[in-house]
Amino acid sequence: MPTKLESAMDTLIRIFHHYSGKEGDKYKLNKGELKQLLQSELTDFLACQKDPQLVDKIMNDLDSNKDNEVDFGEFVVLVAALTVACNEFFEEQQRKKSK
Amino acid sequence: MPTKLESAMDTLIRIFHHYSGKEGDKYKLNKGELKQLLQSELTDFLACQKDPQLVDKIMNDLDSNKDNEVDFGEFVVLVAALTVACNEFFEEQQRKKSK
Repeated sequence: MPTKLESAMDTLIRIFHHYSGKEGDKYKLNKGELKQLLQSELTDFLACQKDPQLVDKIMNDLDSNKDNEVDFGEFVVLVAALTVACNEFFEEQQRKKSK
Repeated sequence: MPTKLESAMDTLIRIFHHYSGKEGDKYKLNKGELKQLLQSELTDFLACQKDPQLVDKIMNDLDSNKDNEVDFGEFVVLVAALTVACNEFFEEQQRKKSK
């Protein structure tokens, strides 16, 4: 029986391969697959970002190697950056509450 | 209704604060809290690691600033590194299967 943290890590792996397996290199997201993943899996979540252009900026960074491919390591960096941004928002709310 | 990816990100934030809130700085894990988190939330998952000392190594890295505190950003780096290691194992298995 996996823990909640293990399930969360498993989910990241499964989601990546669900989209990366659609076409071309099965283990990398091309630009179309990445956009599909972001649009389908991160729409609601973006509402809690303070910077509405955050995803665009990160996508540009990921594109900078010009191969239009994102491997799992790059994908995890994206997810980590978004989660840290959301956590900052969460902690800010908690600090306001406890004042 | 959050997507699976959003739920996974939410889980990371909740788990961190569940342990970081136990004592001292509510928004950071001290060494005891970090060990508790790893032991309770990552035990089974470590079975799929090829390097059994991976967590020890990462913990030493996190300790290197000598304040014995881990903030959310550092925690996410740990989770990302472990997830990438597990994904490499997963992809290797997939490649063997498709031969």
